[in-house]
Amino acid sequence: MTPQRTLRIALLGAGSVGSQVARLLLEHGEELSERSGARLELAGILVRDPDAPRDTELPRELLTTDAEALILGADIVIELMGGIEPARSHVLAAIRSGADVVTGNKALLATHGAEIFEAADQVGASVSYEAAVAAAIPIIRPLRDSLAGDRIVRIFGIVNGSTNFILDSMDRDGLSAQEAQRIATELGYLEADPTLDLEGYDAAQKAAILASLAFHTQVSFEDVHREGIESVTADMIADARRAGYVIKLLAICERLSDPEGGVSVRVYPALIDREHPLATVHGGNNAVFVEAEAAGPLMFYGAGAGGVQTASAVLGDVVSAARRHLAGGVGVGESARQSLSLAPIGRITTRYQITLEVEDLPGVLATVAGILSEEGVSVATALQTVEGEDSATARIVIGTHRASEQALSDTVARLAESSVVQRVVSVLRVEGE
Amino acid sequence: MTPQRTLRIALLGAGSVGSQVARLLLEHGEELSERSGARLELAGILVRDPDAPRDTELPRELLTTDAEALILGADIVIELMGGIEPARSHVLAAIRSGADVVTGNKALLATHGAEIFEAADQVGASVSYEAAVAAAIPIIRPLRDSLAGDRIVRIFGIVNGSTNFILDSMDRDGLSAQEAQRIATELGYLEADPTLDLEGYDAAQKAAILASLAFHTQVSFEDVHREGIESVTADMIADARRAGYVIKLLAICERLSDPEGGVSVRVYPALIDREHPLATVHGGNNAVFVEAEAAGPLMFYGAGAGGVQTASAVLGDVVSAARRHLAGGVGVGESARQSLSLAPIGRITTRYQITLEVEDLPGVLATVAGILSEEGVSVATALQTVEGEDSATARIVIGTHRASEQALSDTVARLAESSVVQRVVSVLRVEGE
Repeated sequence: MTPQRTLRIALLGAGSVGSQVARLLLEHGEELSERSGARLELAGILVRDPDAPRDTELPRELLTTDAEALILGADIVIELMGGIEPARSHVLAAIRSGADVVTGNKALLATHGAEIFEAADQVGASVSYEAAVAAAIPIIRPLRDSLAGDRIVRIFGIVNGSTNFILDSMDRDGLSAQEAQRIATELGYLEADPTLDLEGYDAAQKAAILASLAFHTQVSFEDVHREGIESVTADMIADARRAGYVIKLLAICERLSDPEGGVSVRVYPALIDREHPLATVHGGNNAVFVEAEAAGPLMFYGAGAGGVQTASAVLGDVVSAARRHLAGGVGVGESARQSLSLAPIGRITTRYQITLEVEDLPGVLATVAGILSEEGVSVATALQTVEGEDSATARIVIGTHRASEQALSDTVARLAESSVVQRVVSVLRVEGE
Repeated sequence: MTPQRTLRIALLGAGSVGSQVARLLLEHGEELSERSGARLELAGILVRDPDAPRDTELPRELLTTDAEALILGADIVIELMGGIEPARSHVLAAIRSGADVVTGNKALLATHGAEIFEAADQVGASVSYEAAVAAAIPIIRPLRDSLAGDRIVRIFGIVNGSTNFILDSMDRDGLSAQEAQRIATELGYLEADPTLDLEGYDAAQKAAILASLAFHTQVSFEDVHREGIESVTADMIADARRAGYVIKLLAICERLSDPEGGVSVRVYPALIDREHPLATVHGGNNAVFVEAEAAGPLMFYGAGAGGVQTASAVLGDVVSAARRHLAGGVGVGESARQSLSLAPIGRITTRYQITLEVEDLPGVLATVAGILSEEGVSVATALQTVEGEDSATARIVIGTHRASEQALSDTVARLAESSVVQRVVSVLRVEGE
């Protein structure tokens, strides 16, 4: 079957993902056209410098620096430039011109999602962004379409491959944080400026996108409680291992079940039982648990990064957009906003594992336990050990029962001030139970 | 937002899934309407006997036996009757009347899929069937849309919850096949007639649907090579456990890479390494691996059965169909057929694990090894043990390297005829490596 109609595709950006998208569009053009029902013609590729050296060879005649002409002549615009501007202006221009948009730009969606979806709704264009979260793992479409008839309770997973690679290397190979980061940089898991990954910004952007979709509520990146892995040391990972845990950077979006309701969206490193499926997510992989009222728990797993893997998600969106374009009618807008309130971190309940160095004197454990009791935090496990033979320092590891984050952080603050506590070694939440 | 337009929904069937769909449509009507952009009105429920007792209470005034009137008045028809007729006629009537169809009927799609999709293409109606495979796990939509721009190489998974429950009970609780089946029946995992599950028909139907979608090739249920779990004994499971394996009923759809090409679609019980993620799929759960050229390996995991879980998938399709209905335009047809050839089972390559009882005499292992060598099958592992102290019988377990299924089955046939072999205890393929 040779489709009669031609759809013109504009590609904005030719980085690691963009160049793979271009290659696959050119190499698999016939197959993709058959599936779309229209000939997909790569009309041009917007680049900053057409003569810059590239890893993947791209036809010179397709490269252009004229964004306006390229966008105005396109039926489908693929935006893979990253960053806010000029990506935002280009996406809005594409929507206004009646094109369907496919983007992998999580920063853009997590900050200007509302503006973009509203613009698309007004003209009936579609905006697809499967590539923005967890690379090739289909998670956006399952949330938006497959689970559209269900009520999502919780999303919970590893959505940043770089930090997972680092934490996994520290856990499995006993590397220090510095060594693990160096290898991650060498292997291309970390950017030259690793802040976005290490400090949890990237995971928080993805959490904002997932929460917006799952709870039909506009969640902006700034609303996400964010803690990165900068403070996670090799010692903390070794301690976790001895206690049967592994440390993972988690993104958690949940509907709160207390009477006040609302949702909590947060990113932090947490302890996960080694028997939990998320503990077996190694290297740069991602895995996302989705719990819905009717469907129960579902898990999605796969590569969380990589140019060609992400290109797969982009092309899936392109084929869907092409089918829609041919079928006619307007794009399916983002679901009506429920505007659930966002709960501050203090309102969630969780479990803490608190490691303290204390004076090795009689009565210290009783003092520590007394502080927890006064704050209404119940102790689940307690372990006291002496550091060395002649040491005057003992170590206490306390695992709490579930309590409000506020009570737990107040407890830690009081412990830090207590005269018997020499040092708060680490405080980690325990998740996945 | 109160949507202005109303879409009338006809529900055919009020069994365990249908009654949950009705309940959720009635209870969550407002939320579903907001997400759809139209008021979803349950217009009626087709049942055989409106006065029959039901687990879930349904409004008596919605129950009807008049299929024709119900279907003709509907915008969206949900078919959850199961079986071929009258489901097929009702679905075709719904399509002809311009309704969108949502079905969970795997038997219907695996035998009459081509006819139904063709009818839908002709009038521009949509046919959705997320519930037909792996209940609430989104797998149909990811294959059809998210991976539409990629080339799927292999699908590989546990798609029948009943047999997984039985095999898992035998493995974890040491039950006999009979005991495990009895419990599965008590818990509702097995139908009164368990043949469909035990003999692999249900898994083969799902494999046909997945392969059709993944390879853009019409695969009918009759084309699927099918072996069930009837011959799997507690001894085989105990042997597997000792060797570090677990036995799972697998559905495998793969593109063959040999020069002849084509695809292989098959269902059989196989040995899986206990470290493999599929080995940890317990109870009635399902898990499906999808390997695509660009995306790499992906895994989808969740409940593989259950009324309310399956209802979640049905309602996801209903909301999507409603959005499409409102957006206008024609339904997105099934992707153009590639018509890849279906390879007979003999052409695939796999690994066998062969357990034999042989006479405990010198030279027997050499004779056995000689037969394998003559058939061109290379031995990876061999273990000979004597059964009891005074036994004249020894047991040989041979794991082969990868070889063609034809060579392997020829080898087993020759071993069975050999004078030194008393009994072929079991022959199982090894997968997931």
